[in-house]
Amino acid sequence: MQNFSYQNPTKLIFGKNTIGELANEIPQSAKILLTYGGGSIKKNGVYDAAKKALGSRAVFEFGGIEANPRYETCMKTLEIIKKENIDFLLSVGGGSVLDGTKFIALAAKYNGEDPWDFMCGKAKSPNEALPLASILTLPATGSESNANFVVSRNSTQEKFGGWSPLIYPKFSILDPETTYTLPAKQTGNGIVDTFVHTMEQYLTYPVNAPLQDRWAESILTTLIEIGRKGIDEPENYDVRATLMWAATMALNGLISRGVPEDWATHGIGHELTAFYGLDHGQTLAVVMPGLWRNQFEKKKAKLTRYGHRVWGFLKSESETATLAIEKTEEFFESVGIHTKLKDYGIDSAEAAEKISKRFADRGLTSESGLGENRCIGPKEIKEILESR
Amino acid sequence: MQNFSYQNPTKLIFGKNTIGELANEIPQSAKILLTYGGGSIKKNGVYDAAKKALGSRAVFEFGGIEANPRYETCMKTLEIIKKENIDFLLSVGGGSVLDGTKFIALAAKYNGEDPWDFMCGKAKSPNEALPLASILTLPATGSESNANFVVSRNSTQEKFGGWSPLIYPKFSILDPETTYTLPAKQTGNGIVDTFVHTMEQYLTYPVNAPLQDRWAESILTTLIEIGRKGIDEPENYDVRATLMWAATMALNGLISRGVPEDWATHGIGHELTAFYGLDHGQTLAVVMPGLWRNQFEKKKAKLTRYGHRVWGFLKSESETATLAIEKTEEFFESVGIHTKLKDYGIDSAEAAEKISKRFADRGLTSESGLGENRCIGPKEIKEILESR
Repeated sequence: MQNFSYQNPTKLIFGKNTIGELANEIPQSAKILLTYGGGSIKKNGVYDAAKKALGSRAVFEFGGIEANPRYETCMKTLEIIKKENIDFLLSVGGGSVLDGTKFIALAAKYNGEDPWDFMCGKAKSPNEALPLASILTLPATGSESNANFVVSRNSTQEKFGGWSPLIYPKFSILDPETTYTLPAKQTGNGIVDTFVHTMEQYLTYPVNAPLQDRWAESILTTLIEIGRKGIDEPENYDVRATLMWAATMALNGLISRGVPEDWATHGIGHELTAFYGLDHGQTLAVVMPGLWRNQFEKKKAKLTRYGHRVWGFLKSESETATLAIEKTEEFFESVGIHTKLKDYGIDSAEAAEKISKRFADRGLTSESGLGENRCIGPKEIKEILESR
Repeated sequence: MQNFSYQNPTKLIFGKNTIGELANEIPQSAKILLTYGGGSIKKNGVYDAAKKALGSRAVFEFGGIEANPRYETCMKTLEIIKKENIDFLLSVGGGSVLDGTKFIALAAKYNGEDPWDFMCGKAKSPNEALPLASILTLPATGSESNANFVVSRNSTQEKFGGWSPLIYPKFSILDPETTYTLPAKQTGNGIVDTFVHTMEQYLTYPVNAPLQDRWAESILTTLIEIGRKGIDEPENYDVRATLMWAATMALNGLISRGVPEDWATHGIGHELTAFYGLDHGQTLAVVMPGLWRNQFEKKKAKLTRYGHRVWGFLKSESETATLAIEKTEEFFESVGIHTKLKDYGIDSAEAAEKISKRFADRGLTSESGLGENRCIGPKEIKEILESR
């Protein structure tokens, strides 16, 4: 097991009818900017419940933060934040709204010229941020209980992730009933996202960390067990609750303590979103199986463990590992998320060319590349995408 | 799944040679009381490493906090805390030293006459506490990452648990190498303690919380897999690291979110320590299997799941559940912890009489008793202990 440190200060408030807890968590004197997305919260009652709980507090609103939140959209909030002396951000929606809100929290306190500079690595992350909290309505990103976020820039077709200890939500309210009205595609994307988050911290190479392995396998097995039910029985409370809790636990930092991490699937997937606008979950379902086949020998030990423990295969190492990849593709398809680029009308040769070139332009090589072994460079990325 | 909230602010610093991190975590100006137990930290290098890391900071010392820390011992610190204006407590040792230190942290800020009053329920827990942190040298209690503690009072043969959000350690340093020199009995007790903590949050009745179940089963399976190695290979780093991480994860509040909890084994076990001085782990190994047999019908569903998932039995419900109890006793014995009162020279009839009477005197009944169903009263406690 590798050395690590761990601290996660976010308070999680989980369960039925918990939105009213807002009243106990945000100071009466707060000047709040309530951020949201396309407006589904105004149809499903979440907005009304939040407004009711906030009572007479000063609440300003900013809607329209899109899936794969855009820098350009988020930047529009800075004026109202300054003008109204906003001192608390409340994200109401899914992980994209929350990711955008995390960026806003840092951007609002940034002293430099353009906040994009701390996203693309030209400047340091700010050492101050507005406090923020969330009401989560789409289990997927784990953003409700971590300090990560991802933002895209339209004008440059770039998508970057950020991290700062200052943007752990003060609290996150997770009411599984708010997810009853999610379209099936979003539920499916969330399941794939949770699954792949777990895999990025599990499917690497063994380091003798049996508890971490089993915790990851617990999430994977549970998702496989109930994933399809999440689509077929949208108002099954226990299924919705478990999907929500699994998404949080998959990316609150816990299962990665002491073990190597991959994240190449995310790195490559972000470019598919940036160039072709694919949903985040869709990109993961496309890339990961291809990446596993490309890195088969290096990942074989963990692929075999996964095939054995999660899928119950007891064949030879290579057979078990191969079957595990096939079963994973079947699972993604079973929750409605396709795993090949052609299913999305994308030419794989073109995507492979474009995206591998972008990584090459950024200086990535097969010796200093993505993944737990840092060996996934432009050549491997091209191979992976061509195979999808 | 039941509603819940969760927040755990403790920073965990885990791994080889991490004691030096103290220097980054405690302010230079702190006036520290370093608390410890019987002095093993002075033999195994932990004391020297801590003192070196603390450098020129003002450090006072208080040794002699015993296993099952005593009120009488802890109270002796209050004078030096007041006289020297101590503003930070650093517990160096196992869970008992840390539990005692948590009591001290609250007692030092208590305004009433006798701090025992907030232990036995006569007064409210203080709303202030000294900040505290720990270097943990014995994985068992989970105290390094929670806000619980247990203290015994010699003069009245009482043992009570307490909880306050004010006493989460600011940080805990967990270096598995510090556990290499533990006597086998303490390693065994720690394994049983971790195992039973997990069971108190798992072996109740099903509430459709599959992820929580699997996380608990992950800890149980891992302990069974490596427990004996912890005794036979005391300097196997990965085994020591996993035992340490398992103990923390078993009682940091996570696996109990959304599910019922039992804790009757602990309640009854505390009295065995109070009357007979048994180690905490020993009391748990004695009580739990008896309690399961006594509550067999009510616990059968989870016993069966446990027997199936953790031990691999695929027999009938009753057979699987029965075998699971037997296997659990065998596991405790395999790590050197006996499961019958006679093994400790205690007459079970006498213990049953004495302890059930004490619970009766406290007003416990079979309708308002211990356990997840509140149905373990003096009658059941007598039956359980007589059977051991």
